[in-house]
Amino acid sequence: MRTVTKDNITDVFMAYLAEDTDPRMREIMGSLVKHMHDFARETNLTHEEWRAGIAFLEGCAAIESEDRHEFILASDVLGMSSLVDMLHSSPEATSSSVLGPFHVSGAPALAYGGDMKRHYGGPLLLAEGVIKDTDGNPIAGAELDIWQTAPNGLYASQDAEQDTYSFHALMTVGDDGRYAFTTVKPIEYTVPSDGPVGDILRACGRHPWRPSHLHYIVKAPGYRSLVTEIFPNDDPYLDEDTVFGVRDDLVMTYVGKPASDFPEGMALSGSITEPFLYVEFDVTLVAED
Amino acid sequence: MRTVTKDNITDVFMAYLAEDTDPRMREIMGSLVKHMHDFARETNLTHEEWRAGIAFLEGCAAIESEDRHEFILASDVLGMSSLVDMLHSSPEATSSSVLGPFHVSGAPALAYGGDMKRHYGGPLLLAEGVIKDTDGNPIAGAELDIWQTAPNGLYASQDAEQDTYSFHALMTVGDDGRYAFTTVKPIEYTVPSDGPVGDILRACGRHPWRPSHLHYIVKAPGYRSLVTEIFPNDDPYLDEDTVFGVRDDLVMTYVGKPASDFPEGMALSGSITEPFLYVEFDVTLVAED
Repeated sequence: MRTVTKDNITDVFMAYLAEDTDPRMREIMGSLVKHMHDFARETNLTHEEWRAGIAFLEGCAAIESEDRHEFILASDVLGMSSLVDMLHSSPEATSSSVLGPFHVSGAPALAYGGDMKRHYGGPLLLAEGVIKDTDGNPIAGAELDIWQTAPNGLYASQDAEQDTYSFHALMTVGDDGRYAFTTVKPIEYTVPSDGPVGDILRACGRHPWRPSHLHYIVKAPGYRSLVTEIFPNDDPYLDEDTVFGVRDDLVMTYVGKPASDFPEGMALSGSITEPFLYVEFDVTLVAED
Repeated sequence: MRTVTKDNITDVFMAYLAEDTDPRMREIMGSLVKHMHDFARETNLTHEEWRAGIAFLEGCAAIESEDRHEFILASDVLGMSSLVDMLHSSPEATSSSVLGPFHVSGAPALAYGGDMKRHYGGPLLLAEGVIKDTDGNPIAGAELDIWQTAPNGLYASQDAEQDTYSFHALMTVGDDGRYAFTTVKPIEYTVPSDGPVGDILRACGRHPWRPSHLHYIVKAPGYRSLVTEIFPNDDPYLDEDTVFGVRDDLVMTYVGKPASDFPEGMALSGSITEPFLYVEFDVTLVAED
């Protein structure tokens, strides 16, 4: 098109696509560009604002690293990550929630009943539950990848005091589908706000807090993998999670119990002298299509 | 909101904005996030596709540098840069066109009639015109910042053989508003396609070519600055500029002239023995609001 105008540029863009472009690529690029152009037209976006947008992306690029995923964080605080999760959640399965930037591959194996907190102090928590299918049958051999904040509110990758796999563990369940581990109660924390995403939060008068949670990835052969988080029902940020991760069925209750109720068969059995917290949370996976 | 759903997440996002958020910030973030969410919902964007989007941004980040502006290039090939230009073009002024990634600040001054090509060979081009206001009066003291490709199709910043300011020049016009300079005819070229933006072009069956052009930024106190490009009417890529930069009024004609027609008063006057190309292109600026 020799004469591109503000009114025909979206059509010109589509006309540039080759006829044999993959149909899904055509659908995604068509929708993306239509919405980008409509955004610019609706807001009458100025050059200065466009430059601010480019500067935002370049600012994210400048701090992007293996330990700092600013683009994912942007997607998280704009609700995109949660939206994509919800678009593909099965109503029969446990709700999914955002992956976030703190998952680490290759976490060390933890046996049933093992202790994830190692030498860290803080309120002792015993978490247990069953990994099951939509009929309620246990999924033998399911794998539970667990991570959470340390008692200082930091993930291992944010904290020079912790080693790589601190508060990360991988548990494989047996025939009964049961998992159980001890840890310290995770605490609420802020997403990193010292970069361009933090600037956006401040410009919108938003805080960077997330409610405390245990983060799980649950996998089993033949089932759809699930990324999820479980949140205590008394967390102050439950109604205003800055990354939109809270779902009704992911809210649970920490129950206080006396030391004498601590069960047998755990790594810490026999050594508990103080009250502890207990949470039971089952996870339901759907079969792969 | 304790229960975020795929249907209410855009409203939840807006509810997170503080009441005293700057109204323009609210308008821009509201429109941006509505369109991002609608894009995801319309396409039923999958996790894999979301990851591909993040990988695209991280891939741009990985090659972003002072000499490689992949985010601007992405904006260019998606039509955003041209759209923002067109949204703010005045119908009374010369059309604006994309800035692109190759402008360099601090180009050396070139006197009226100066030669920008220095030692480079190729078809000699004499460009001249008047910088004027919307009443047709010359704008004394207007500044013309000129850049173009070298005869090898590369800009200085892409080419180790050229120095920083090769084919970059800054000309200040006198009371008559006239500019004139000699150069070699610019040639068509490809935008960088060895990065993530090139991957997008290939996936869409698009080529990376831009029609040849002279690139100008024209500034004068009291007038709106103009970024523009002028294109020859016989360029093979005029109807399919990969960055959507061509406008009707920016298409001009190179006129072939005999050496004897070369005017007096230019740096090269008296030394021309071969036919040369000539283009006349006036630039109209509008007063600042």
